[in-house]
Amino acid sequence: MRAGIVIIGNEILTGKFADENAPFLIGELRALGVELQRIAVIRDLVEEIAETVTAMSARCDLVFTSGGVGPTHDDVTMQGIATGFGTPVVRHPELVALLEKYYGDKMTERHLRLAEVPEGTELVYGTDPVWPVILFRNVYILPGVPSLLRRKFNAVRARFQARPFLVGRVYVMSDEATIAPAIDQVVAAHPEVAFGSYPRFEETEFRVLLTVEGQEPGEVVRACRALAAALGPLVVRTEEPTGT
Amino acid sequence: MRAGIVIIGNEILTGKFADENAPFLIGELRALGVELQRIAVIRDLVEEIAETVTAMSARCDLVFTSGGVGPTHDDVTMQGIATGFGTPVVRHPELVALLEKYYGDKMTERHLRLAEVPEGTELVYGTDPVWPVILFRNVYILPGVPSLLRRKFNAVRARFQARPFLVGRVYVMSDEATIAPAIDQVVAAHPEVAFGSYPRFEETEFRVLLTVEGQEPGEVVRACRALAAALGPLVVRTEEPTGT
Repeated sequence: MRAGIVIIGNEILTGKFADENAPFLIGELRALGVELQRIAVIRDLVEEIAETVTAMSARCDLVFTSGGVGPTHDDVTMQGIATGFGTPVVRHPELVALLEKYYGDKMTERHLRLAEVPEGTELVYGTDPVWPVILFRNVYILPGVPSLLRRKFNAVRARFQARPFLVGRVYVMSDEATIAPAIDQVVAAHPEVAFGSYPRFEETEFRVLLTVEGQEPGEVVRACRALAAALGPLVVRTEEPTGT
Repeated sequence: MRAGIVIIGNEILTGKFADENAPFLIGELRALGVELQRIAVIRDLVEEIAETVTAMSARCDLVFTSGGVGPTHDDVTMQGIATGFGTPVVRHPELVALLEKYYGDKMTERHLRLAEVPEGTELVYGTDPVWPVILFRNVYILPGVPSLLRRKFNAVRARFQARPFLVGRVYVMSDEATIAPAIDQVVAAHPEVAFGSYPRFEETEFRVLLTVEGQEPGEVVRACRALAAALGPLVVRTEEPTGT
């Protein structure tokens, strides 16, 4: 499963709030074994939401949006997604009933904005007995408030369980360019796993962190050992994935 | 000036490292008065880099990329940008000379990968007496290692000085939907500034943070006061931008 994330909100781009939702979703998706392919952070503009979400929806199996759902002038995510897919925004009767039950006498016309979704939306309760997650096609439309986003994601996370990724790490005391030709040979011999090479300049124990990642334990371990063998005495430490 | 950021790196999308570069650039650009319009986080793939950077370059006045510059197999940013703009990757003689001076006898063919840039690249030293920043058209190509990115950005940041943004804040003790109609009226009457409305559920002193943002102090103050007047006793506190 391939996923994309769209963070919608001027407040992130203007530095009023630090985004907590992409880091949360990155960790969750990785732990679930879902491959995150792309993140976009965009403004609260109908046209940008329309364009970005439809493009992400076409490329990925799953899309998660964060933000822009609510009753105020800057909450245009529903309209953006509806525009992108050429469908109208409608009041969902089940959401209207939930809001009536929750707000009672205090409910105003404006509260009903929270029941407005792109036509064709599916409500997914997952493990939440009260409030559903809003799903339009392959797009999970989540709120921007971090505590609410986490609650909603956790209610439906069992849907995304895949095969977890395993990571091996090889720490090397060397200039990156010096070891690059040897790394290239190991990379070419192990196309079944993904390799990363990350120079670090503020560590004292190592200068380059090499990573090996895959979903098959034996493959990750073999590639880790091949890297360690190729780099010999320059290797400071090897961490094979746990559980293997 | 409108800016975009492209964070290039599997290590971010797979959760191996938390991205520090977008948060840094968000803060810097805001402080400079540059309007950040969009952030993309993408994989180390030539085609995705090509497509994303050229699109961002066309939309924005300035683009900053982070990551994928270096001597290993996963460093494909230069190739990606060159492919996107239909230009070859070439060895820049001035960069070759700098690398020869720095590495001396230890220099290998692989170290010269660090001198390879899209043809037409400009070298911008700014305040750094030794290493230039790589600029191709309107794209500043920065390294992914956070300490290096900061150093390079700081060397050239004076180029981006614009008129700073000013933010006023109004803290309100109310349900967001209840005050939304009153906010709408103030928003409609003050098109010269940008308004944001952010519900918070974990604060005890307020329930909604309203923000007013602009580049003209008088406009921001007037809009702040109009919001406060419209919401009356629901307002807990108003912060007008400092310096006005």
